[in-house]
Amino acid sequence: MATAQRTEQLIRRMLDLNARKRVQEVDETLVIACIEACVECALTCTACADDSLAEPEVLPLIRSITLCLDCAVICEATRQIVTRQTERDVGLLRAQVGACAVACRICGAECERHAAHHEHHRICAEACRRCEAACDRLAEALLT
Amino acid sequence: MATAQRTEQLIRRMLDLNARKRVQEVDETLVIACIEACVECALTCTACADDSLAEPEVLPLIRSITLCLDCAVICEATRQIVTRQTERDVGLLRAQVGACAVACRICGAECERHAAHHEHHRICAEACRRCEAACDRLAEALLT
Amino acid sequence: MATAQRTEQLIRRMLDLNARKRVQEVDETLVIACIEACVECALTCTACADDSLAEPEVLPLIRSITLCLDCAVICEATRQIVTRQTERDVGLLRAQVGACAVACRICGAECERHAAHHEHHRICAEACRRCEAACDRLAEALLT
Amino acid sequence: MATAQRTEQLIRRMLDLNARKRVQEVDETLVIACIEACVECALTCTACADDSLAEPEVLPLIRSITLCLDCAVICEATRQIVTRQTERDVGLLRAQVGACAVACRICGAECERHAAHHEHHRICAEACRRCEAACDRLAEALLT
Repeated sequence: MATAQRTEQLIRRMLDLNARKRVQEVDETLVIACIEACVECALTCTACADDSLAEPEVLPLIRSITLCLDCAVICEATRQIVTRQTERDVGLLRAQVGACAVACRICGAECERHAAHHEHHRICAEACRRCEAACDRLAEALLT
Repeated sequence: MATAQRTEQLIRRMLDLNARKRVQEVDETLVIACIEACVECALTCTACADDSLAEPEVLPLIRSITLCLDCAVICEATRQIVTRQTERDVGLLRAQVGACAVACRICGAECERHAAHHEHHRICAEACRRCEAACDRLAEALLT
Repeated sequence: MATAQRTEQLIRRMLDLNARKRVQEVDETLVIACIEACVECALTCTACADDSLAEPEVLPLIRSITLCLDCAVICEATRQIVTRQTERDVGLLRAQVGACAVACRICGAECERHAAHHEHHRICAEACRRCEAACDRLAEALLT
Repeated sequence: MATAQRTEQLIRRMLDLNARKRVQEVDETLVIACIEACVECALTCTACADDSLAEPEVLPLIRSITLCLDCAVICEATRQIVTRQTERDVGLLRAQVGACAVACRICGAECERHAAHHEHHRICAEACRRCEAACDRLAEALLT
């Protein structure tokens, strides 16, 4: 079972063990925060879409369902790409992290609209905003 | 940043908010533990394959690389399927959770072979074993 | 734009160019048919779930939506695993191909139930059945 | 087994059956070409990375392996997102299609460097270029 900050420590450890480690180029903390936020956002978006499908009134939630499905798959792709450090390409990384920030912003705004009615939308909107911020910070650091 | 048992609590919260909640059929704790273990195993397998690609001697690691890539994609697929509760199909769930246990066993055994030489293989083998156990427990509970 | 049997030829060519080619162990044609069927089934399941979300009466389609989402992610995972030949593990491959056959059978049966009302369900059910058969044939060949 | 232009026809049929069809906004042909190119590029990138792992001299191919793994996951994510039309968000779609074009350009350039030595790199570079062009054309159409 997860203990305190286990995920963060696990990611840091696995990144540090890379023999060609390159993440010193950007602040490694930003890389780890981005991976962690993508994992969390993929989890909440998958669950939020599923929770919406279980609501008695589905029609007003269709947009949040499709945005959550899109956001989940983008977060998972971004998670993989940010994790891979060996021969990392900064241009590709920046493009995908940037797209992820856009997806999180759009999905988070839609979930926020339903936050007053469904707690799962509120939690999901929060995870989207956190992931958007983590992606924005990493994308910015990659520009310099 | 992740606080204590954050991931577990987040997953439980999102599952509990499903209006057609069905996981009482099996012990919900087994469902949550399986999701969490799949997330962790996908993370370590992606990173372990990447760490292996960075090693000066890659040839003896090819098998661990391909098994880690396979195991990561199976864990991510399983994570999504175990998360979705609405109109859950027990037969489909059991089949995928069972395949995930097999993948984790095979990948974990290969990573274990390199554990003495590479710490990333040791950590990955451990995550695979934990995920195999979580999948086995859930698959068993789904049989009854 | 795709020309006749382009996908099949492309897959065969890429598999044949593997320097450690192992697929002679099973009939290579079964491997290629399985990859192709997984691609097609993932495409139709993604589109069928989306088409269902666009229908005016969504509630009776919730089960087909979640099964299509599950089946799509399993087919995509299976597609990747069947494609990777280098240091292929037959046990892992058989487990995932077997799980994919189960998912296709269950999803196909549900889509079939709606086939009379929605053409997208009819097409999707057909792709599921074709993928189930391709997975079954490959799984059987892997047993010998 | 695939017959002439089967994939293209199948995609078009499934998109046309969406009850809230929106793709008339952009030329539907561009949407279909993008989906088809993403499928093909994901297939060749997965196989090319695997073929590289089977080569006797892996070290000079590490960069092409990681770029192919990244490009495959981005193409698969993009394939899903372009397929979903219901309540499509043009901003999200454009961001992901744009990131996919960048990934295909970078991965294609690296595979091209090895094209003279390995036929699988030549085929993969070609699929990347085709997918880059299809994504660029769709992204451009989405701007207007």
